[in-house]
Amino acid sequence: MVELKAEEIFKEFKQHSVAEFFKKNRQMLGYSGMTRSLVTIVHEYVTNSLDACEEAGILPDIMVKVEGTDENKYRLSVGDNGPGIPKNYIGKVLATILAGTKFHRYMQQRGQQGIGASGCTLFSQITTGKPIKAVSATGTGNGYSCNVSLDTVHNKPVISEYKEVDGARRGLMVEGEFADVKYENSDHGIYEYLRRTALSNPHAQIKLVDPSGQEFAFLRAIDTMPLRPKPIKPHPLGLTVNDLIDFAQVSDSRKLSSFLVDTFSRFSQDKANEIGGIAKDVDLSKAPKDISWADAEALVKAFKQVKWISPDATSVIPIGEEQVKVAIKNILNPEFMNVVERKPRVFRGGVPFIVEAAVAYGGNAGKKTSEGYEGNILRFANRVPLLFDSGTCAITAAAKTVDWKRYNIDIENQPISVFINVSSVYIPYSGVGKEAISQEDEIIDEIKLAIMEAARGVQRYISGKMHINHETNKYKTITRYTEQLAKDLADLTGEDKARIDKSLAKLVTKHYPKAMIQGEDEDGEVTAENAPDDGEEAEEQE
Amino acid sequence: MVELKAEEIFKEFKQHSVAEFFKKNRQMLGYSGMTRSLVTIVHEYVTNSLDACEEAGILPDIMVKVEGTDENKYRLSVGDNGPGIPKNYIGKVLATILAGTKFHRYMQQRGQQGIGASGCTLFSQITTGKPIKAVSATGTGNGYSCNVSLDTVHNKPVISEYKEVDGARRGLMVEGEFADVKYENSDHGIYEYLRRTALSNPHAQIKLVDPSGQEFAFLRAIDTMPLRPKPIKPHPLGLTVNDLIDFAQVSDSRKLSSFLVDTFSRFSQDKANEIGGIAKDVDLSKAPKDISWADAEALVKAFKQVKWISPDATSVIPIGEEQVKVAIKNILNPEFMNVVERKPRVFRGGVPFIVEAAVAYGGNAGKKTSEGYEGNILRFANRVPLLFDSGTCAITAAAKTVDWKRYNIDIENQPISVFINVSSVYIPYSGVGKEAISQEDEIIDEIKLAIMEAARGVQRYISGKMHINHETNKYKTITRYTEQLAKDLADLTGEDKARIDKSLAKLVTKHYPKAMIQGEDEDGEVTAENAPDDGEEAEEQE
Repeated sequence: MVELKAEEIFKEFKQHSVAEFFKKNRQMLGYSGMTRSLVTIVHEYVTNSLDACEEAGILPDIMVKVEGTDENKYRLSVGDNGPGIPKNYIGKVLATILAGTKFHRYMQQRGQQGIGASGCTLFSQITTGKPIKAVSATGTGNGYSCNVSLDTVHNKPVISEYKEVDGARRGLMVEGEFADVKYENSDHGIYEYLRRTALSNPHAQIKLVDPSGQEFAFLRAIDTMPLRPKPIKPHPLGLTVNDLIDFAQVSDSRKLSSFLVDTFSRFSQDKANEIGGIAKDVDLSKAPKDISWADAEALVKAFKQVKWISPDATSVIPIGEEQVKVAIKNILNPEFMNVVERKPRVFRGGVPFIVEAAVAYGGNAGKKTSEGYEGNILRFANRVPLLFDSGTCAITAAAKTVDWKRYNIDIENQPISVFINVSSVYIPYSGVGKEAISQEDEIIDEIKLAIMEAARGVQRYISGKMHINHETNKYKTITRYTEQLAKDLADLTGEDKARIDKSLAKLVTKHYPKAMIQGEDEDGEVTAENAPDDGEEAEEQE
Repeated sequence: MVELKAEEIFKEFKQHSVAEFFKKNRQMLGYSGMTRSLVTIVHEYVTNSLDACEEAGILPDIMVKVEGTDENKYRLSVGDNGPGIPKNYIGKVLATILAGTKFHRYMQQRGQQGIGASGCTLFSQITTGKPIKAVSATGTGNGYSCNVSLDTVHNKPVISEYKEVDGARRGLMVEGEFADVKYENSDHGIYEYLRRTALSNPHAQIKLVDPSGQEFAFLRAIDTMPLRPKPIKPHPLGLTVNDLIDFAQVSDSRKLSSFLVDTFSRFSQDKANEIGGIAKDVDLSKAPKDISWADAEALVKAFKQVKWISPDATSVIPIGEEQVKVAIKNILNPEFMNVVERKPRVFRGGVPFIVEAAVAYGGNAGKKTSEGYEGNILRFANRVPLLFDSGTCAITAAAKTVDWKRYNIDIENQPISVFINVSSVYIPYSGVGKEAISQEDEIIDEIKLAIMEAARGVQRYISGKMHINHETNKYKTITRYTEQLAKDLADLTGEDKARIDKSLAKLVTKHYPKAMIQGEDEDGEVTAENAPDDGEEAEEQE
C-alpha cells in the first residue's frame, strides 16, 4: 500500500474564480437541456428589463427575438425601453459574476444575485465563442454600443468595439449567439415563459418574434405602474445572531441602544429599554462595534420574548387582486375564477412575504391533452414565472397536500389553472438557477392556505356546474319520457296531446329550472351569469 | 411618473464575494431545514475524509460524533486516519470557497468543488459565531491544531490558536458547533447517511456516536483498497469548442498537431493527419496559442466525423460487482439480490461514466411501514449517498420510467431496495449542494437499462416466490378438502380412512411439490436454496 505524502496530494490544489466554477458547472445556472438553456437566457434578460423599468418608473415594452443561425444555434436579442445602463456599469452587469448585484439591499426585486446576465455571457462564450453585444441609451444625450465578454480566470469583464451611438432610443438591447440550445413550442418553451410573464406583469407589453419570423404580442392589460417596493429596515424577529453582528460592524451609531433603534424596523427607544431589561448582561451603552457573540445572542433571544408590530408590509408588493383578475382574463379568459390576496406573513422569524393565489376554470385554463384536460400549476416568485424544477419547489409541495376533492376539483381531469405568486424582499431559492422556492415550512403552509381559500371560491361554481349537468341529463331523460307519456295519455283519455304535453312540460320545468336554461344553451356551456353567484366571476374587460 | 436616472439606479451596485453570496443563500449549499443541515455537514466532512484516504492509499477509519449542547445546537466532530492536511493548506481547504479544489483535474473524486468544507465553516460561523477546530497530523513528525474561520467579505481564511501537537495520531479531526440543526433518526438523518456510505464504501469503517451517547459501527466488509482513479486525458468527443481553446492556451506544444496528440486521449499522429484532412482550412502547424474560434470549431466538427476508440474506462472506478454484493449482504442482508455492473458509457459526447445497479429483496431491504413494506431507491454518485432533492435527480427520473410490473415487482408494497451508483470523472450535479444528478438524457437512459437488467435477475426469484405462495395456498385448501373426502370415502366404501388419506395426500403432493417443502417451513419464508436458481443468490459472508 503506497501512502502518498500529504504535501504531494495537496500540491495540486488551486483556487478558482466563481466564473470558472460556473463555467464547469453550467447546469447549476439552468443551462441543462437545450430547450431549458434557451429559456434560461430569456428569463435572465427579461427579468433584468422588468426590474430596471420598475425601478425607473417606466411601463415596460420588451421585445424578444429569436433567429436560428445553424443547427441548435440561435441569435437571441432582448430589447427594452428601460433606463439603460451607464457605460461604467455595463461590464459589471453583463460580465462579472456577483458584481451587478444589489442583494445587500433589503428590498423586493426579481433579480437578486448578480449572476444571471453574466451567466448568459459565459454561456454564449463557451458555446459560440462570441461576446454579447449591448446597445444602451439612457434617453439623455447619446447612447453607446459595445461587445462584452468575460475573462473567467479573473472574473472580470472585457469590453471591445465601444462606440457612441447617435440618437439611440432609450433602453437596453442585448444580443448574443448561443449554441447547444433549441427553440421549442412546449410547456417549457420561450412562448410559454413569456405568456406567464405577461400573466404576472399585466403592466408590461411583451413581443416575441420566433425563429419562423412569426410575431406574437402579449398586450399591456393595465396602464398603471406597480407600486414601487422600497428598501426597508430588517425586522428584529428575522435577525440571526450573525446578522446582528454584521449590522453592528458597519453602524455609525454611538451606542448599541441607538444602533438598534436606527437600524431595525419597529424598534423604539421604549423597545430598547424593554430589551435591556431582559438582556441584563448586555451593556447597551457600549459601541456597536464592540458587540460580542454572547451580547448578540442574548439580544436575539430577548427579541423573541417581547411583542412586536409585524414587519412592514409596504415593503412587499404583491401583483394585486384586481391586476391578477385582469391579467388572467387577458391571458386565460376562463369561464370562472377566484383570486385571493393573503395578508403578509413572515418566515425565518421576520422575513415578510405575501402569497397570491387564483384558481381559474375553463377557457384557456388548464392544459389540453389528447384525452381532454388536465389542471396545471403556474408558479411565480416576485412575478417571475418558474418553469423548471417543480419537484423541489415549495409551491408544488403545497399544492400536493391540498385535498382537491373537498372543493369538487378534479385537478387531473379538469381545465383548471392554479396561479401562485410569492412576493418577498428575499425569496429563498433552492438553487442558483432560481427555478424553485426552497421548502420552508412557513412558506408551504401559507401557500396551502392560499390555494384552499382560492379553491373554496370556485367550489360552488364547479359544484353548480356539475349539479346543472346532472339536472340537464335528468331533464332530458324525463322529457323523452313525457313525450311518450303524453301520447299514451292522449290515446287513453281522448284528451288533446298538445295540452297534456304542455302541462307535463310545465311540471318538469318547475322541478328542473336550471336545466331548462341550460337546455337552451346549444353547446352545453354554463356561462358565469347563470352559475351560482358565490365566488368571483370572470370580469369582462373594458 | 418619476423616471429615476440610470446613474442613480446603478450607484447601489456592489460586488460581493462568493462567500457572501452563499452566506446569504445558504439553502443552496444544502443548509435548509434543521435535519438536512446537520446531514450536510457530515456529508461534506466524510466525503473529504474518504477522498483523502483513497488518494493516500489508506483504508479509512472514520469517527463521527454528535453531541447536543443546547436546543437545536450540536457539537459535531469527524475524525479520520487519513493523510492529514499540511498546515499551509488548512485555510484553503476549510475556509476559502473555491480554493481547496482540484476540479481542474480530469479525475474521478467524491468532492469536486472546493465549496463543501468551507461551507461548513461558514455555517458554524453564522449560527454560533464559532470557528472550526482542526487537528491534523501527517504521521511523520508533529501535528498541529488550530481554529479556522472565514472572512466572508474577502473570502479568505482566518487562522487562530495555532499550536504544534506532540505525537498526534495521523489523520484529520475537525470539530465545530452548529445551531439551527437537529439530530433526527429518520430516512434523512445522519445514521441513514452513514449506513448508505458504508453500503457504497465497503472498504471503510465508520463509527457514529449519537447525541444519546450510543455508539454504532459499520464494520469494514472488504480489506482491499478500491482501485485508484487516475487523472486521464480528455477524450476528443467530450470536448466543446471552448474546451479546446482553453487547453490550447495553456499548452507547451509547438504545433497544433502535436498539441492534439499530447493533450487528448486516443489521439495518434495518424488521427491528427486524418483530422487535418477533414478540417482543411485549419493550419495544424500553427502554434496552439494562435488557435481561432473558427479553427477550434472546425476541429471539433472533424472530431465527430472520424472513428475513435471509446474513452479510457480505467479512469472511472465503479465499486465493483463483488464489493457491492458483500456490502449489500453486510448492510441489508437480503433474501436475494442481483447486482449489475454496466459497461462504460459516455455523456455530452465524451465524458465516461459507469452505472452499477442492484435490486435486493427481503431482509433489511426496502422500508418498513405501518402497513408492511415499501421499496426504496438508494442513490449514489461516486459512492456518495444522495439523500435529498430526489425529485430533480436523474436516478429517480430513470427509476420512475421502469415498468416494474414486467419484473413482477410491486415497488410500492414489497421489501425491495434499488441501489444505483453512478461513477464518473465528472458528475453533473444539478445544484451546488450536490444532492441530485442533472437529468442528462444519456445518463437517464443508461440508469434505466441498468435497473432493468438488475430487475430481470430478481424477477424469477420473485415470480417463484409468488408462485410458491400461490401453490401453498392451493395445497392447504386441497389438504383441508382431502381430509373430509377421505372420511366420506371411508364411510361410503368401508375402506380404511388412513389408507385413503395417505394415497390422496400422495396425489396432492405430486401436484404441488414446492408447496410441500414450503409447507414444512414454519415461518413461511423461502430461502435462497429452494428458490428458482436464476439470478444471483445472496452470498454468505465468510
